Amino acid sequence: MPIKQRLAAVKQHLTDEQVYAKAIDPVESMNEERAKASFNIRELTYLLDGGEKSTLLKERFMQEFERDPLFKMDDIHDITKDELRERTMEKFRSLVHHLSNEPIDVFKKRMEIVSLIDPGFWTRFGVHYGLFVGALQSNATSGQLGYWFQKGALSLSGMVGCFAMTELGHGSNVPGLETTATFDEASDQFIIHTPTLTATKWWIGGAAHSATHAAVFAQLIVKGKNYGTKCFVVPLRDPKTYNLLPGVNIGDIGKKMGRDGIDNGWIQFTHVRIPRSYMLMKHTKVSRTGTVKEPKLQQLTYGALLQGRVAMVVDSGNVSKKALTIAIRYAAVRRQFSNSDSKIETKLLDYPIHQRRLMPLLAQTFAMLFTGSEMTEMYNKMMSRLENAKPGDTDLEKVLEMLKETHATSAGLKAFCTWNCLSTIEACRQACGGHGYSAYTGLAGMYQDFAVQCTWEGDNTILTLQLGRYLIASFREAVKGKKLSPGVGYLNNLDALIGKRCNATNSDALLDPKVILEGWQVVCANVVRNAALEFEECIKQGLSADDAYEQCSQSRLYAAKLHSYGYLFNRFLDGVSKVEGNLKAALLDVCLLYGLYTIEENAGAFLQYGYFSPKQMESIRSFTNDLCKAVRDQAIPLVDAFNLSDYIVNSPLGRADGNVYVHYFDQVKRSNPQGPHPYFNRLIKPLIDREVNESDEDDEDAGLEDEDEDAE
Amino acid sequence: MPIKQRLAAVKQHLTDEQVYAKAIDPVESMNEERAKASFNIRELTYLLDGGEKSTLLKERFMQEFERDPLFKMDDIHDITKDELRERTMEKFRSLVHHLSNEPIDVFKKRMEIVSLIDPGFWTRFGVHYGLFVGALQSNATSGQLGYWFQKGALSLSGMVGCFAMTELGHGSNVPGLETTATFDEASDQFIIHTPTLTATKWWIGGAAHSATHAAVFAQLIVKGKNYGTKCFVVPLRDPKTYNLLPGVNIGDIGKKMGRDGIDNGWIQFTHVRIPRSYMLMKHTKVSRTGTVKEPKLQQLTYGALLQGRVAMVVDSGNVSKKALTIAIRYAAVRRQFSNSDSKIETKLLDYPIHQRRLMPLLAQTFAMLFTGSEMTEMYNKMMSRLENAKPGDTDLEKVLEMLKETHATSAGLKAFCTWNCLSTIEACRQACGGHGYSAYTGLAGMYQDFAVQCTWEGDNTILTLQLGRYLIASFREAVKGKKLSPGVGYLNNLDALIGKRCNATNSDALLDPKVILEGWQVVCANVVRNAALEFEECIKQGLSADDAYEQCSQSRLYAAKLHSYGYLFNRFLDGVSKVEGNLKAALLDVCLLYGLYTIEENAGAFLQYGYFSPKQMESIRSFTNDLCKAVRDQAIPLVDAFNLSDYIVNSPLGRADGNVYVHYFDQVKRSNPQGPHPYFNRLIKPLIDREVNESDEDDEDAGLEDEDEDAE
Repeated sequence: MPIKQRLAAVKQHLTDEQVYAKAIDPVESMNEERAKASFNIRELTYLLDGGEKSTLLKERFMQEFERDPLFKMDDIHDITKDELRERTMEKFRSLVHHLSNEPIDVFKKRMEIVSLIDPGFWTRFGVHYGLFVGALQSNATSGQLGYWFQKGALSLSGMVGCFAMTELGHGSNVPGLETTATFDEASDQFIIHTPTLTATKWWIGGAAHSATHAAVFAQLIVKGKNYGTKCFVVPLRDPKTYNLLPGVNIGDIGKKMGRDGIDNGWIQFTHVRIPRSYMLMKHTKVSRTGTVKEPKLQQLTYGALLQGRVAMVVDSGNVSKKALTIAIRYAAVRRQFSNSDSKIETKLLDYPIHQRRLMPLLAQTFAMLFTGSEMTEMYNKMMSRLENAKPGDTDLEKVLEMLKETHATSAGLKAFCTWNCLSTIEACRQACGGHGYSAYTGLAGMYQDFAVQCTWEGDNTILTLQLGRYLIASFREAVKGKKLSPGVGYLNNLDALIGKRCNATNSDALLDPKVILEGWQVVCANVVRNAALEFEECIKQGLSADDAYEQCSQSRLYAAKLHSYGYLFNRFLDGVSKVEGNLKAALLDVCLLYGLYTIEENAGAFLQYGYFSPKQMESIRSFTNDLCKAVRDQAIPLVDAFNLSDYIVNSPLGRADGNVYVHYFDQVKRSNPQGPHPYFNRLIKPLIDREVNESDEDDEDAGLEDEDEDAE
Repeated sequence: MPIKQRLAAVKQHLTDEQVYAKAIDPVESMNEERAKASFNIRELTYLLDGGEKSTLLKERFMQEFERDPLFKMDDIHDITKDELRERTMEKFRSLVHHLSNEPIDVFKKRMEIVSLIDPGFWTRFGVHYGLFVGALQSNATSGQLGYWFQKGALSLSGMVGCFAMTELGHGSNVPGLETTATFDEASDQFIIHTPTLTATKWWIGGAAHSATHAAVFAQLIVKGKNYGTKCFVVPLRDPKTYNLLPGVNIGDIGKKMGRDGIDNGWIQFTHVRIPRSYMLMKHTKVSRTGTVKEPKLQQLTYGALLQGRVAMVVDSGNVSKKALTIAIRYAAVRRQFSNSDSKIETKLLDYPIHQRRLMPLLAQTFAMLFTGSEMTEMYNKMMSRLENAKPGDTDLEKVLEMLKETHATSAGLKAFCTWNCLSTIEACRQACGGHGYSAYTGLAGMYQDFAVQCTWEGDNTILTLQLGRYLIASFREAVKGKKLSPGVGYLNNLDALIGKRCNATNSDALLDPKVILEGWQVVCANVVRNAALEFEECIKQGLSADDAYEQCSQSRLYAAKLHSYGYLFNRFLDGVSKVEGNLKAALLDVCLLYGLYTIEENAGAFLQYGYFSPKQMESIRSFTNDLCKAVRDQAIPLVDAFNLSDYIVNSPLGRADGNVYVHYFDQVKRSNPQGPHPYFNRLIKPLIDREVNESDEDDEDAGLEDEDEDAE
């Protein structure tokens, strides 16, 4: 018992009160936790960052931003939306410099840090460079791309872009957009028009105050025929004055749940004319005489979508890091209730139930981090392979198959990782008790900023259904004998998996990663099969494929969920297997915790398909408790390895030194200086000084007594 | 297919475009849904409100507030924290009038409406009347109570109170508070003192700007002996000037996640002297000479705690009503994607997956509403029974036993209902897609306001453990033959329940409420038994009872969860059984959906204890889908029966007429009037007009060319 030992050791020199003060001192408590490290913390940081060089670069950026007055963050909860918007534009300006002077890989690392400091700013910057420039790159011919770059699209001189896809009445369904782009042959122009209220471009980041140009998605109409949604560059404002151009009406979308630094706007076009050449014609082309040439093949858009999804898996891991740093450090120093024989209250982290609240989420964060890095690497490899592809390459089909699988898997992972991260933030917030409700402790704002990730770049529920659809299709192909790519490879092994039970005879075998891995495969094979059978039943009843998929959407979602969890465990385990020594031992506990915890959470499926018996499931619950305790011992070292500076964490409860109360009190005082009462004379004085006997009933009588009563 | 029929019917008179516009018109879509009602909507409203009279009263209040300029709510998302604080004080003042002129029952109904309009204001008002006056009523002698009431505690003249319990370093553990109240016999005074930073009173609602007096909880110290935490009235400010009194230091807690209308503050006392008589001495008394007389029995605090918890179950139901009104009405008119043979996009509500997202939450809301009203009634009955109790009453022990059970059950229900409500709000927000992220659609703010309910009046996790502890204790008593009160009565039936399997032979029997009810009892009996066995095992290993309870906390939480869900179903079913006719039929679907959905969600437990077979569980999944579809047809009528006016719902997406886009666009425009660019000249112009060729590398060269290169 470290407390008792320490008490004994210091008792010789100190008074009882000093001993007590030392025992409950949060800084001492934190040091005590830090001393428990069973592995080299720095080694884990390098592993998570992808190497020492990357860690050093991140540290350089953290320091740069911390010292940059524009990136001051400790007043962020008290400035108004308008102040935040303006400050965000200042940051925007300051980053342009780095963008032009830094290799893109380095700049990306910088932006990763930015996303942890101020996600709203990250988005505002990303709207131009990610979305607008991305739209040019995907849709412009090389000549057009050159033109817009020369006009300033890359250097941000003379123009700032925004991305006008969604409409008030149309979100995920891009082909259903209403805005029209009608070719006028006489003038060689397109007429961009918002025909209805629901066609109003909505949520357009940068539209309210930043953008001069928009990449507008509209229905291409030539000679009365609709060719579907295409992309057009439409000037919005005069870059010299920022006055709106004729026919363009723009308003501010205003207050949001979070990310208020972004100036989202709405745009209505009323017969706005643009040159024909402003239609981006990499794919579909419209000639001077109105001949429309459509591309032979639908463009391969996997790449762009994939990149966004993989980035959001990584971001889910990173934001979870930050949330857990706060909640776990606080739990290491916060004390509440004492057991009978001690006046010293117990650390939250020592309560089994608090371990249960946080340790599985810590494990899940590692699962997301390992999966995120691996997917990033895989994505980069596949993309460079495809860029260098030549017709006749023998491995191309395999790569394309894998791309398709990664595309589907990443849809599910985007959904479940963003959901997991959002729940992690909220669980961390609640684990900080009342202080979690203070804006200054950071978790409330983190929730509000992150929440949008469950909706944008594809509503999570819809993405899970995409994965579910892919899993059903893969199952049906596997049954026909097709060899699937590794991520869904277990579907090639149905005969062995369906009906398989865990053959462990003693309960310790449940801690064997191979058993857990097999368990996930068995369960996934079963739920995918069930969804596929349900789908086939619908087809038999005469439904179209689309309707059949709709009917079994709940089963699709369920299959996607289990597939994604199994995938995360698989990737985590694979990552751990590459590590060695003490670090491996520590990470293996974390990995096993993740595996058993997710099995426990999905016990219904594991029991349903009989992979585990009810008795084994009881053991799993008990092992999960044990692993929570084991991981708890390394919790502070693990969180330290995330290597987020106090500036980045930006929460007094998450301070590395553990001196939470001093920092928290300082922050609250600094943010709320004492001053004169704001409304005493106007509101409180008249209330508190008033005559007490006022009563409407009395007043209504106005001295008149009732006759009947008088008559007595 | 109503759309096709309608299309055919109108086609005769209208152009294709007119037909299409009519088919997608949100108002038409809403009318279509409303026409589906299979029951009398008004009848359901009366049932939920507790009778026609109550409904009429609520409607009167909704109208009153809507017309009251102080209660303007459509700009609430755009005013600053300071403006909100001030407006909240204005509302506060306006309610005092009603409080003095309305019977308390009527005023309570008024406050229920207030809590739906502006929960922050509701809390600020409740701090004085609920917490401060409540503390007087629980802790003052009748003479003291008279004194404070006469001083203005009820009429709010001359004084406003706050409730100073929690401290920076101490939340749930009231006996662990650090603030001291030391008796000074010489002056016949108590000295109130904040000895450390962590003893700072924290989160005190009303302290920053409203209160003149505080009910302070502090350690009573007399002649060097500590008698534990007692309650003292401590003056904070001069009511004439609102200047702080000597030794009192108060600051503003500042920005929170939500409820920013409350002026939470921190308070530090530095040797503040109060008369001895300001200690509230209903229980413990301190005489002029410092003799401390402690009460023979610990006071029965069940009552006050119970009331708060029951109120939060009711509130969880009410807030869920509001959230679902928004999400379901929006889903009834929002269209997205069309199936192959129609240009008309499909209503969100027609997608099976969207039904899955919202219908179980609608069912859960009804479960909370029925449970809330029944508990309120039970609570009132028990309290009036206890008030009139005389020694020797034969039923008293039974009532006390029931009170104890309700106290424990309400702890669990407070936790799971507030968690459920918070998840419901978030699920509703996500179900509105991107628009859920707008502040004006109301769900973001609702989340931020509601979130605190999971923490205050007992952290949810801790409350679940209290229920878990009670369940284990009850189990152990039941085994010894004690007859338990009805809520845990199933534990008297262990022999029949443990090991029992569902004996339904055909799957339709799974729709029999009796089967569901029995299933919950079997599962609850099993998990409680497991937790108790785990507890006993810990005791056998030599742990103290407290440590043993700590060790099995995860099992306690699990038992509490299942007990609470089973209880909610039980109460819902009981409520439905008292209804008749079409309404009963409609509600029975909702109730069955709740039952089967929660079984599906807890499939692990039902399979673990073998009550349902894997095959039956598959049928339950399939029935849940069917019930979602059935309830979907009545979704708008059910939501209409909640009878919340557009003013109360305060969300353009939740408007009763269904005209969501028009209202939403109006709101956004009204809240964000177009004006001159706020920072074009200062920030954007210098960026966009700058020379493009600037580059630090070039500048550093400063015209000097490198010699080696020159040498060529």
